[in-house]
Parts: sequence; structure tokens; C-alpha cells
Amino acid sequence: MQRPSNQLFDAYFVARDMAQVFSDPGRVQAMLDFEAALARAQARVGLIPQAAVAPIAAACQAGLYDFSALGEAIATAGNSAIPLVKALGKQIAAGDAGAERYVHLGATSQDVMDSGLVLQLRSAWQLIDADLQRLGQVLAAQAQRHAATPLAGRTWLQQATPVTLGMKIAGWLGAVTRHRQRLRELQPRLLCLQFGGASGTLAALGEQAMPVAEALAEELQLKLAEQPWHTHRDRLVEFGAVLGLIAGSLGKLGRDISLLMQTEAAEVFEPSAPGKGGSSTMPHKRNPVGAAVLIGTATRVPGLLSTLFSAMPQEHERSLGLWHAEWETLPEICRLVSGALQQALIVAEGLEVDPARMLSNLELTRGLLLAEAVSIVLAQRLGRETAHHLLEQCCQRAVAEQRHLRAVLGDEPQVTAQLSADELDHLLDPAHYLGQARTWVERAVAEHLAFT
Amino acid sequence: MQRPSNQLFDAYFVARDMAQVFSDPGRVQAMLDFEAALARAQARVGLIPQAAVAPIAAACQAGLYDFSALGEAIATAGNSAIPLVKALGKQIAAGDAGAERYVHLGATSQDVMDSGLVLQLRSAWQLIDADLQRLGQVLAAQAQRHAATPLAGRTWLQQATPVTLGMKIAGWLGAVTRHRQRLRELQPRLLCLQFGGASGTLAALGEQAMPVAEALAEELQLKLAEQPWHTHRDRLVEFGAVLGLIAGSLGKLGRDISLLMQTEAAEVFEPSAPGKGGSSTMPHKRNPVGAAVLIGTATRVPGLLSTLFSAMPQEHERSLGLWHAEWETLPEICRLVSGALQQALIVAEGLEVDPARMLSNLELTRGLLLAEAVSIVLAQRLGRETAHHLLEQCCQRAVAEQRHLRAVLGDEPQVTAQLSADELDHLLDPAHYLGQARTWVERAVAEHLAFT
Amino acid sequence: MQRPSNQLFDAYFVARDMAQVFSDPGRVQAMLDFEAALARAQARVGLIPQAAVAPIAAACQAGLYDFSALGEAIATAGNSAIPLVKALGKQIAAGDAGAERYVHLGATSQDVMDSGLVLQLRSAWQLIDADLQRLGQVLAAQAQRHAATPLAGRTWLQQATPVTLGMKIAGWLGAVTRHRQRLRELQPRLLCLQFGGASGTLAALGEQAMPVAEALAEELQLKLAEQPWHTHRDRLVEFGAVLGLIAGSLGKLGRDISLLMQTEAAEVFEPSAPGKGGSSTMPHKRNPVGAAVLIGTATRVPGLLSTLFSAMPQEHERSLGLWHAEWETLPEICRLVSGALQQALIVAEGLEVDPARMLSNLELTRGLLLAEAVSIVLAQRLGRETAHHLLEQCCQRAVAEQRHLRAVLGDEPQVTAQLSADELDHLLDPAHYLGQARTWVERAVAEHLAFT
Amino acid sequence: MQRPSNQLFDAYFVARDMAQVFSDPGRVQAMLDFEAALARAQARVGLIPQAAVAPIAAACQAGLYDFSALGEAIATAGNSAIPLVKALGKQIAAGDAGAERYVHLGATSQDVMDSGLVLQLRSAWQLIDADLQRLGQVLAAQAQRHAATPLAGRTWLQQATPVTLGMKIAGWLGAVTRHRQRLRELQPRLLCLQFGGASGTLAALGEQAMPVAEALAEELQLKLAEQPWHTHRDRLVEFGAVLGLIAGSLGKLGRDISLLMQTEAAEVFEPSAPGKGGSSTMPHKRNPVGAAVLIGTATRVPGLLSTLFSAMPQEHERSLGLWHAEWETLPEICRLVSGALQQALIVAEGLEVDPARMLSNLELTRGLLLAEAVSIVLAQRLGRETAHHLLEQCCQRAVAEQRHLRAVLGDEPQVTAQLSADELDHLLDPAHYLGQARTWVERAVAEHLAFT
Repeated sequence: MQRPSNQLFDAYFVARDMAQVFSDPGRVQAMLDFEAALARAQARVGLIPQAAVAPIAAACQAGLYDFSALGEAIATAGNSAIPLVKALGKQIAAGDAGAERYVHLGATSQDVMDSGLVLQLRSAWQLIDADLQRLGQVLAAQAQRHAATPLAGRTWLQQATPVTLGMKIAGWLGAVTRHRQRLRELQPRLLCLQFGGASGTLAALGEQAMPVAEALAEELQLKLAEQPWHTHRDRLVEFGAVLGLIAGSLGKLGRDISLLMQTEAAEVFEPSAPGKGGSSTMPHKRNPVGAAVLIGTATRVPGLLSTLFSAMPQEHERSLGLWHAEWETLPEICRLVSGALQQALIVAEGLEVDPARMLSNLELTRGLLLAEAVSIVLAQRLGRETAHHLLEQCCQRAVAEQRHLRAVLGDEPQVTAQLSADELDHLLDPAHYLGQARTWVERAVAEHLAFT
Repeated sequence: MQRPSNQLFDAYFVARDMAQVFSDPGRVQAMLDFEAALARAQARVGLIPQAAVAPIAAACQAGLYDFSALGEAIATAGNSAIPLVKALGKQIAAGDAGAERYVHLGATSQDVMDSGLVLQLRSAWQLIDADLQRLGQVLAAQAQRHAATPLAGRTWLQQATPVTLGMKIAGWLGAVTRHRQRLRELQPRLLCLQFGGASGTLAALGEQAMPVAEALAEELQLKLAEQPWHTHRDRLVEFGAVLGLIAGSLGKLGRDISLLMQTEAAEVFEPSAPGKGGSSTMPHKRNPVGAAVLIGTATRVPGLLSTLFSAMPQEHERSLGLWHAEWETLPEICRLVSGALQQALIVAEGLEVDPARMLSNLELTRGLLLAEAVSIVLAQRLGRETAHHLLEQCCQRAVAEQRHLRAVLGDEPQVTAQLSADELDHLLDPAHYLGQARTWVERAVAEHLAFT
Repeated sequence: MQRPSNQLFDAYFVARDMAQVFSDPGRVQAMLDFEAALARAQARVGLIPQAAVAPIAAACQAGLYDFSALGEAIATAGNSAIPLVKALGKQIAAGDAGAERYVHLGATSQDVMDSGLVLQLRSAWQLIDADLQRLGQVLAAQAQRHAATPLAGRTWLQQATPVTLGMKIAGWLGAVTRHRQRLRELQPRLLCLQFGGASGTLAALGEQAMPVAEALAEELQLKLAEQPWHTHRDRLVEFGAVLGLIAGSLGKLGRDISLLMQTEAAEVFEPSAPGKGGSSTMPHKRNPVGAAVLIGTATRVPGLLSTLFSAMPQEHERSLGLWHAEWETLPEICRLVSGALQQALIVAEGLEVDPARMLSNLELTRGLLLAEAVSIVLAQRLGRETAHHLLEQCCQRAVAEQRHLRAVLGDEPQVTAQLSADELDHLLDPAHYLGQARTWVERAVAEHLAFT
Repeated sequence: MQRPSNQLFDAYFVARDMAQVFSDPGRVQAMLDFEAALARAQARVGLIPQAAVAPIAAACQAGLYDFSALGEAIATAGNSAIPLVKALGKQIAAGDAGAERYVHLGATSQDVMDSGLVLQLRSAWQLIDADLQRLGQVLAAQAQRHAATPLAGRTWLQQATPVTLGMKIAGWLGAVTRHRQRLRELQPRLLCLQFGGASGTLAALGEQAMPVAEALAEELQLKLAEQPWHTHRDRLVEFGAVLGLIAGSLGKLGRDISLLMQTEAAEVFEPSAPGKGGSSTMPHKRNPVGAAVLIGTATRVPGLLSTLFSAMPQEHERSLGLWHAEWETLPEICRLVSGALQQALIVAEGLEVDPARMLSNLELTRGLLLAEAVSIVLAQRLGRETAHHLLEQCCQRAVAEQRHLRAVLGDEPQVTAQLSADELDHLLDPAHYLGQARTWVERAVAEHLAFT
């Protein structure tokens, strides 16, 4: 009896391609791909007859199996490979009674499950990598577009000296580039065959163990690790951790966007779409529907990741319980990060920017944000101590009298003796106090381009 | 386009009843139950015509809706209530155009989602509570059955002075009884209506706000909290935390069982069943298929729980992202704990015990486990210092010569001068050094019975 | 050789009283309190001579011991009780050679460490409870003071219909009251003696086991649990979880405050103090120095808590590793929550409120926030459909033309036909659309008062 | 007023060198190293007079500062840099009034704290890397020493076909080699200067910003990142994650050892030492005092790590709360992993092995472990089906009659017709069914050597 579906939030939180990879058919097909490749490999080294390969391969189609019945059988067997291999055997036997005996030779359940998982993770790796690359391109373009657009820097959620939107976007871009480097570096550690037989020695295959292992790795285009890694899970957890880093960086992007979208800031927005995040009774609302996924994913992945790390001390040659704890956890991390990337792409591509509002928000402190700029120039003329003290007084006067710092400075003879009205205007213009903002954009874009 | 299923491990990890509660139909039905109750409540206080109730109620059947389409709409709307209410409106209008306008009056999306969730959690609470009660009964019976069955105590995974199997089981029982107390205590905080309208003030309902709220709470048999709790999630997280405690205690049970089942210990076993955890090539194997779920769940829930705690600082009157992080996380905790309880019941009911092996394992240290017993009696006759020193020497001799402590003591004149052969036999019999083991069983059973 | 200190952030993150409880002297004293009480209890039941009590008690002063040497000895012994009991024995022997033999009789290391921990947790419980009570009082007063102060509700960080500051504070208060209930409820489960001897049977004490246990519990004013709980850690983890709930609620308070303090909102502030969170170059800055601790603690505690939950499946009669994982983790949770409470009290007591700014922020959307209020009244006169449609048009016009909704409505004949200028003014005044805001304050305060 | 110490467990859980790195003096010195280098860099580019460097450098000695007073000031300032820079200024002024004005020019608090942290992390990286290298050497030697020592493989904690101790150790070694690769790869991303000034633009340094930044990076021998990374924390969290992987692998080592040390297995032991893990009343006990730290660390680090990941979405140009959450968390991870490495080295170097007990444990199932070996040979002679069926019957008979499989096979004519007594003896000898065990050792050692 099929269980009812449980995926109401799937379209919102998970990219469709990734959902496919970690679906029941995706999981079963990956295990069947292992079995088919094993037969091919064993035929290549002469362990099983070549004639057995075709009937086995023909039965290695996920569509032939009843996932619901498999699920029930898993509850008794304690893993997914035992019932699948049993069902596979029946399927082969139905077509070619003789071929059945040549399936799964010398392999153990964990070989099937772990190698199948690695095949799924290879697909996941490719999807994530492609999305990161595209996100990098979009962010690079946006960073350049807004390289000179000033907005208030904000530290501790308080306005600080100005930055540019381009520099902020370049910061997001820098993280994306680093994540791509990390994915590249871990790849050879991740995409490794697991093949050890009952306890990891491949003893059942005798002299042919290494030739079979090598042929199998070749068939699946996986690396042959230094030894079977059934209870050394660092390969998998490392991938999870890099996905966690991606989730965290996208969470930062989502957090920034959601703060910029606040009614009181209203500087940058997710793209709008019909029915998206709006409210008929409150037409001004722009709910950050995409940022919510970015923040939500960055909140969920750390917990899932801590499970993976907690599950690392797997006992002896096969763990009970800790291995089981991974089965749905690592896939869930892949799924969630795919959904966050999907939303990040929508947000980044359709970013709506209000430079005028940014400028007017820069005026909220009536010039105080730029006191530092004035102070530096005055210091060169009056000495640092004097300049600092003078400016501090002017700032306090501006606050107390609720006046603009420009006006207060313009009224202060010690200041006007040094600085002309034009100079003061210039110093208090955020566009002239952006430091290395453009350099940061250029450097981040250069790193992005160098990696591609 | 429906997404492929993703529940291959569901039957193994999740109880069927709980899976039903948190399925797509379960989730949608709970939200519809809220809408139907709201209509009844508003009709009772005269806010909407009585005639509108029946058409609304008729449309509040989960089976009428397309979950896949809802899922896609959620991805645009950012929550599940907006598209459901829209679909509900259409459904009502199809039957009774006039009634549509009376649905969802004064409510906001979070009211529907949170109150619907609470209705699901009430079902979850009941399932968990019933399973805990049954588990308590089973453990109480087993503790009494094995109250006098000695086995080695084990500290740091090293054998220590003997305990009884009954006392060990009584320890598991004690935790179960405490969990039932906790569930009872948190119930009034958990089963509360969420109803606040757009920002939590219920302003849209004017003077009728409180009468509607009270009638609605009554209809749903939920408590009316001191105020809407949309961004105060402690009610939910507390429930998650108690589920986490249950998972932890069941994990301890699973850990103990899996250690006792080791080939080298072989004292206690999960019940066997055809095809369960066996291996055709290794007929001695008894894989702890149930314990794996207990350990697996105890490994997964802490991470999920940390997400719930991390998601507590929800901004202002509705969070973006942190609220979203809960949607699948708390249900997943309920699901996993239900599965662990299901396995714990199987394990506890069918426990297979080998008292003879327990006794022979108690002999592995050749009597050293009971040195303490001899030491105490000798101390009364020779003084503590002398006795302790004497026994220490005998123990070291037993180890060095690989002899049984009984033999070494029997050869030692200073000992035999004080203790007869019968006395020595008695002192080195584990069954005579069980201290309060039986008392602990009685006390744990008494607490269990007192609570029922 | 003493290790260098490592507590640069202690004053910022941890309350002084709580730091004392979980300091080296605090920890050692609690274990010594156990040993002294054990001697008194054993003298009371006649197991040891009354004369031994005074010399033992005299040696049970933490100040007599070298914590650094103890620390080194712990690294060899694997726990803190073995070296402390050894040092204690020497200390006693130095004063009264005869009394030494009567110390620690029948107890095991875990008895000392766990019962000592419970004594520390009792102090921690009292400190937390007292701070929560005081925080409840402060919040109740502030909620009442600001019960009628309107500010924008904010959902998804977008402005929504108005709420009041009092209602927002009452929300924080409600959580505090619930946390006090939870602390009260768990107390009898937490404050329990651990006393089981080598494997938990108390066998070494023979017939006097229960009398000693009862007397010891009485001496320490702890409950005697149904059985020793050395590997059933739910009592401790439950306390940790409630502390986690407190951390989460305070994190929400901190998150709200930090958002309200933003330069762009500037509605509510932490109290200022000389040198606190200011910046000489940016005099407008009001860094939320206290809120940072609230958010920081709410970010740190979930991870620590997940460790406690992960460490629950402790093997057999004493765990290795999982028990060790608790030793610094639960204390750290107590310490961090104490610091958050300390900051929450400062923030709540000194809250600086700018009601004028709240009102002006309510105007940022030019009346759109109150469209719902107009819509409801119009619906009663024009029918819901018509009213809703009409208002939607007016809102869109207001947005498109950047005019205030009041002006657009005043120009719209269909509206003015139904609503006078006074009525429109009234409807668009946030102070008249606050719904049950005051009721929520009253209910939360009533619950707070009922609990005290 | 100094707070009491809180480091009773430090010597057990943390290596002394690492404790030094993250002590109060270590932290303060790293920040002072930044300030001294900044002065040198600014003098090099001519921004400040060369004469100011010496007085500044002279004041940059941690020993000159009162950490307790600093701690109190941090509680007001909200970070450690503000009070330290203030104290530094006073210290400089006391020696050379003129030099004070040249300290900390253009830098912000986060520059000092983050760059100081990176300097500490560089030391931590070196300590961890050196310990991993040494651990790799020890494990390589042990793997080779025990390359041919058979012991039971164990899957699901049930005995399975034999493996070798060398292969098990080689598995631990493989993980160590991968961790060293990871550390190498992340190094250029981790060891980067943070230098951005108030909002990250370095605007206060005008044209000299990049020259100063480059000179400063050179002075500190850190990389100049593509832009300041104040709110992009992936560099730090990645390091934490690799430390988490190390903790997990060491946890697996500790878990394996603790299981092998069980009284019922007693195959491999941590080295013993006077007073280490023993028990005077139970002389047979060998408490795994080192393994407890390995398991404890593997239990604690995942939670700490989830905090780091949760703290990644840092707002805008400086976070409040999330940044604070890192300050003690990443150092704690470094500290704990250093302690686990310290214990792993002790355990690995002093490993005590009992090959005789391993052999006798291999006999616990009376030959069933090797049924697979017989089955394979028989299959070549009788056909797979027949052979499998025959052997299954023999195994069941062996279990039912509690006889050794060798005896049952020797009595079975269908078997003896194919296999001589010598052949049977050979097939049932674990030493002849070790498959690729030696190959795995060679490959792991080769990878280790290739990396060094």
C-alpha cells in the first residue's frame, strides 16, 4: 500500500533536477547502474560469461521495480540493497534463468548503496557546479553594472561610511568563486568507487579482486580509492560541508536582500512577478519570497550537517545506525542547496535597484556618515588632534540641533578658514568617498573570470 | 507535473500513522479544518450567515485538491495558505457563489498554517503518547521478568560488578515514564490556537475579534493563548525538544541492545523474523535492524532540533526564512520519533535473552568482577587496609597466573583463615552481589503504574 | 604549571554569579559537598563513626586544593573525581589519619561528579529563575507603559497594519512566563541525587544501601530518583533544552531590538552609556551591544544543545566519550544564558523609545498600511466585493502617483459618498486600528502576575 | 576583579600548545601583532613617520596589558579591539606622546580582531598539520607491523569474514592523509589579511589604501584577498569544517579502539600507564581514557560547527551577534581537535595488541565466519547452486548441534568427496582468507608517503 505523498513544499525548496536525482527512481537506478557495471566488469576479466551481461543490464532499469514494495522490504532487511538485489534476481531470472547467478558477485550491500550514492552525488555535483557558475556570471555582471552606485555601508545594522552596491555584490561573487574552487578540489576524493565485499577485503573474488575492482571503477568512471571506505565517511561529509558553505553564503545574500527590501530601506528588491509575495490588502508589500528560501536553507543545513559529522565514528567494517543516519540526510542537503541556488539565480538576475532611494537614505544622518572624510582633510591642515576635536564638536552640534552637518560646518569659521564651500560639498558627497570599492569589484570579477 | 516519490526508507524509519498525519493530505486537511471551524465560529457569533457554513465545510475536504498544483503555487506565493485559500474559494464558488466571500475572514496565512500545524501536532502527540504508554507496559513486564537475571555491569565498556537485566530494562522504563510526564505538562502550552490576522491584532474583526477567537478555539478544542504566538515559537520547539529526549532515550536502548547482541557478548537479541537482519552466507549473524533505527534516529534528531532552536529569533510579527525553516523540520522530528518508537516496541516485546551466556560472560574475568564483594567481608574481619591490600595481591596473582580468583583465594592462608570454602563460593557468586537491583525494578515499575 | 587564562569575553557573555558556579572552585566545592554529606549520612546510619565526620568536613573546602595539579591528574585518570578523592584523602589524613578510611565509601566517581553537577545546577536554576522573574516584572511594566504606543507591524520585514509597542513587549513577556513554568515543572526531575556505586546497584553498602541513600539525599536536599540515572541523561538535557528555549526567546527580543534600532527605523533603542557601542567618528551610531549578546547566545546554544542530545545514548552503566562530552557543554549553556539574561535586563530596563519616529514611520507607505481599515467599513456599506475592488484601485493610484492614500480617497466620489472627511481621517489614524493590542497586554500581564 | 579559573578539564581535552594560541595572551598578542605590522607598513609607504614605529612596536607586547580589565571594557564596547586599541594608545603615549597618533590608522575593530584571529589560526594550522603528519607516520608503521595479523571483521557489530589489524589501521591512515590534503588546499583561502576600514572601502586611506594593504599583508605574510571578507566567513568556516572531519575520523579510531578493548573482545588496547584508567577494586579494568577524548571530541565538534555554519549569514558590512557567535566557537574547535590529536598520538604509538586473542575470537562462531571461503571453492566443483545449498545445510547443522563447522564438513560425504582434510583446514584458516588486506595497507602507506 503506497504511502501518501509528502512534498507540498518541494517545488518551493528544491530544484526539479535535483529532486529527480534523489527521488526513488533516481536512487534505485543508481544502484542498478552499479550492478550492471559490475556484470560488465566481471565479464571483461572473464569471471562471468559475456552472455550474462545483456540479461542483467536489461533488468537494470528502475522503471521495472515497485518502490513501495521495496520500501516495505527495506524495513525488514535493514538496507535497500538486499531487497533490490533480490528483486533484480527475479527480474533477470524471468528473462534468462541462467544469468541470475552472475549478478552481484562478490559485492556486499554497502558496495551497492555507497557506490550508487556516489553516482547520484556526481549528478548533484554537476548541477550545483553549473548553477554556481551561472550565478557567478550573473553576479559579475551585476557587480560591474552597479560598481559606482553608492549606498550606505551598514555595520551592526547602523549606517556607516558609504559603500557601493557593486562592491556588495562583488562580495557575494567572491564567495561563489571560492565555492567553485572547493568543489573542484574535493571532486577526486568524492567520486570514488566503494567495493569491498563482506568485510572490505574482496576475499570472495580471490585473485581476480583487483582486476574486477579496476574494471568496475573504469566502467563507472569513478576513482579507485586507496582502500574501501565503507566506514570512513569523510569523503561524503566533506561534500556536505562545502554545500553547507554554499548555503551559508547564499543565506548572507538572502539576509542582505531582505534587509535592503525593508519598507524603511527600500533600496534593492527581488524581482516581482504576478502573485509573488504580494498582498491584495497591502499593495505596498514586497515579501522577499526568494530570500526566505535562502535564509531558510541557511538555517536548516547546519543542523543536517551536524548530523553528518556526528555520524562519522562508524564502527569497525560497517556501522549500524550511524550509516543509516546518512541515508536521507546528505540527499536532503543536496536538495535544499539546489533550491537555494535556484532562488538565488532568480533574485540575482532580476535584481531591482533604486539608486535614488539609496542616495536619500545616505542623507538620513544629515551628513554624519561623511564626517570621517572631512576629518581626514582637516587633519592634514590643522593637525590630527585639532581636526578630530573640531569635527567631533560639529557633529554633536548637528545632532543636538537636528541640522545637516554641511550647514554646521559651513557656519564654523575654523572649518571655513580651511575648506571652501565647493570643497565641503565635495567632501560630503558620498560618491567621492568610496575608497577602493571599484577595485574590489574588479578583483572579484577577475578572480571569477580566471576560474572559469 | 508530479514530482517522483522520495520515500524509499519511509516504511523503515517512520510509523505509518504518523506518516499519514504529516503527508500532503494530512497537512492540507488540517488547514481546511481551520477554515471550516472559522466559518462555524463566525456564524455562531453572527459575523457571517449560517447558510454559508455548509458550502464552506463541504469544500473543506483535502481530497478535492491537487497537491502537485498547490506545490507549484506555493513556490510563487511563499506559503501554503495563500494558494490553498484561493483554491478553496474557487471550490466553494463552484458550489455556492455566495458563500465564497465568507471564507477566511479576518485570518492571515500564518493563522491557517500554524493552527493547522497544531491540529496535526495534536494527532502526533496522541500517537506518541499511546506508543510510550504501551512501551512502558512492555518494559515494566520485561523488567519484572528479568529482575533476578544477573549480567555483567559495564562501565567504560569494561566489565564491572554485576547488575541484572531487569534493572537495566527498568532504567529504560524510568526514562519512558518521565517522557510521558513531560508530554502531559507541555500539552496546554502546545495545543493553542494561532489567530491574529494581518499583524496579530485581529483589528479587521473589530469588536467581534474576541468572540470569534473564543468560538474558534472552542470549535477546534484548542486553548486560546494569552496572545497570538506567530513569532514566539517556544510552544513548538518545546515539543520538538521532548521528542528529542525520547529519541535520545530510545537511542540508549538501541545502543545497549546492539552492544549486547555483539558476537562476543551474545546475551540479548532483537527478535528474529524471516529475512530480518540475517545473511545467507553468514548464518550466525543477527544484524540489529531495529537498533539501527533507534541509533539512527538519535543521531538525526539532534541536528533537526538545533535547526528549530536556531529558528526561534523570528523577526517582528512574521519571520521570513526562520519560519520557513520549521515547516518540514518539526514534522520530520515527529516522523522519525514515531519510527523509533515502532522499532522499540518490536524490540522490547520480542526481546530474546540468553541467561546462560550472561553467566558465562560474568566468568570472563575469572572472578575479578566480584573481588569487591570479598574485600568488603574481609574488611570487617581484618580491617579495611589489610583486607584491601590482601585482595589486591590476590587479584594481581590471578591475573598474572591466569587463574580464577576463587582458586587463588582458596590457596591463600590469610583468606582461608577467615572465609570457608562455602563462604568464598557464595561471595564469588554474582547472584549474591546484586545490591538494590530488585529495588530499582520495583521503584521504576511503581512510578510507571502511578502515572498510568 | 598553570595554563594561561582564556576568558577575555567572559564579562561580556557570562553573568558573574553564574561564572562563579561553574568555575574550578565551584565545581570542586560541589564535589566536596557531596563527600561531606556522604560522611554525615553514613555516620547517621551508623556505617562510619561520628568522629570521622568533622575531619572529613574540614577537608571539604575547595580552597585547599590546587586546581592546576588536579587538571593534570584528570588527564591521566579520565575523570575529576578520582584525583580529587585522592587529594581529599591526603588532606584528611594530614589532619586525622584515622578518618581517611571513611571517605567516599561505596561511592563511585560518577556519583561524585553527577551529584556535584546537580548541586551546581541547583544554583544555576535559582539564578536563572530569579533573573527571569525580574525580567518578567520589567517587561510587564514596559508593556503597560507602551500599551497604546502604535508602531508599524512588520511581516516578512515589510510594514503591515499597526501594532503597539506594548503588545510587542507583551509577546516577549508571555514567553518569559512560560519559561518560568517550564523551570518549575522540570525541577523535581532535575534535582535528583546520583548514587549507585560501581555499577549502580549500591551492592558495596549491603543492607545499609537504601538508608544511606535516603540520608544522603536528605543531607543534600535532593530527591532520591527511582534508580541511579548515570546513563539516563534526560534529566540534564531537559534542563539544557529549557535554557535553549530561553536563549531563543531572548534572541527574538534581541533581533527585534536590533531591527528597531536600525538607522532607517530608529524607533527603539538599547540604553546608551558612556563608551557603549558608540563611535567617535560616527556619532550617530548606536551599536546594539546588548542585542549582539542576545543574538550571539541564541546562535551558540542550539549547537551546544545538539551535542547534549547527541550524547544521550550512553552505553550500559557508564559511557566513555558521551559522558565526557557533557562536562563542559551543559555548564557552557548555563553560562551563556546567564549572560543573555544579564543583557536582556539591561536592555529591557533602559529601553529608549521614540514614539514620534514610530508615527512618522507609519506614514512611510502614505496610508497604505490602513487600507484594510477603510475597506472593512466600506464593505459594510457597498458590499465586500465592490468595496474591495474600489480600494484596490485607490491604493494602486496612490502608489502610481506617489500620493497619500488619504488624498486619493478624498478625491474619489464613490468613497466620499460614503465616508466624511472626519471618518476618513479617523480610519487612517493608526491609533484607531489597533484591534486587541491592549487586550494582549492585559492577558500577558495577568498570566505573569498569576504565576508570581 | 579577576574571575575564577574555569579550566579543570583543559589538560585532558586540549593540547598545551594550542591552549597557548587561544589563551588571553595569545589573543591579545595577535591583535597587537596586527597593530605593530600596520605601523611598519604605513611607515614603509610614508604614511606615518618611521620614528613612530619603534614606540608602537614596543607597546605591542601582550604582557603589558591587564586582561581582566580588558574583559570588563569589552562588555561595554562590544568587541575586544576598541578597549585594546585604547589601552595600547595609553601605553604608547606613556613612552612617546607623539607616536600615539599613528596607531591603528585607517583600521576598524574588525580588521584587528579578524586579522589577529587569522594569525592565531596560522599557528593552529601548523600545530594540527604537524600532529597529523606525525600521526600518519605512526599509523603507517603500525599498519605495516600488523599487516598480516588477522582479526574478525565486524559489520553491524556482528562478526563477519576476517580482516587484518593492519588494514583497519590503514583505513585510519587513509583519512589522515586526506585531511592533510584538505588542510593544504584551504590554506591560501584561510590565511588572508582582513583590512577594510570602517565599511570595507579603505576610504580613509585615500590613494595610499592599496599600498598600505599590500605592505601590511607582506609584513604579516598573509595573502591579500580579492576584497575585505568581514562578512564572508566561508574562509573560517571551511577550516572549522576540516577540523570537524578530523574530529570525526579520530572519533572513529576511538570508537574502534574502545570496542576492541571491551572485556569480551580484549584484542587491542590503549597503552597503559600508572594510574591510567585503572581501578584498584577492579584490576582487570582498562578504561579507554584516551578513546573517551576521541569520542567526546567527535561528539562536541559537530554542534560547535553547526554554530559556525548558522552564523554565516552576516548582515551587510558587519554583523551583530553572528560575528560574536564565532569568537569563542572556532577557537574551541581548534582546542578540542588539538586534544583529540594528542590522545590519538598516545593511543596509536602505544597500541597494545593481543594477536592470540584475535585468533581465539575468530573461533567464536566455530568456523562459520569462513563458510564463504568453502562455498566459493565448492562452487567451482559442484556448481554454485548446489554448493551454496550444501553449505547452508552444514552451517545450520553446525549451529543446531553447537559443533565446529570444520567437524560438520568433515562428516559430510558430499564435501569430503571434493575437499581433502588438508584443504578443509586451509579453507577454514582465517589467515588464508584475507583477500586484498595487504594491498590496502600498501596503497594507504604509499599515499601517505607520496604526500609527505
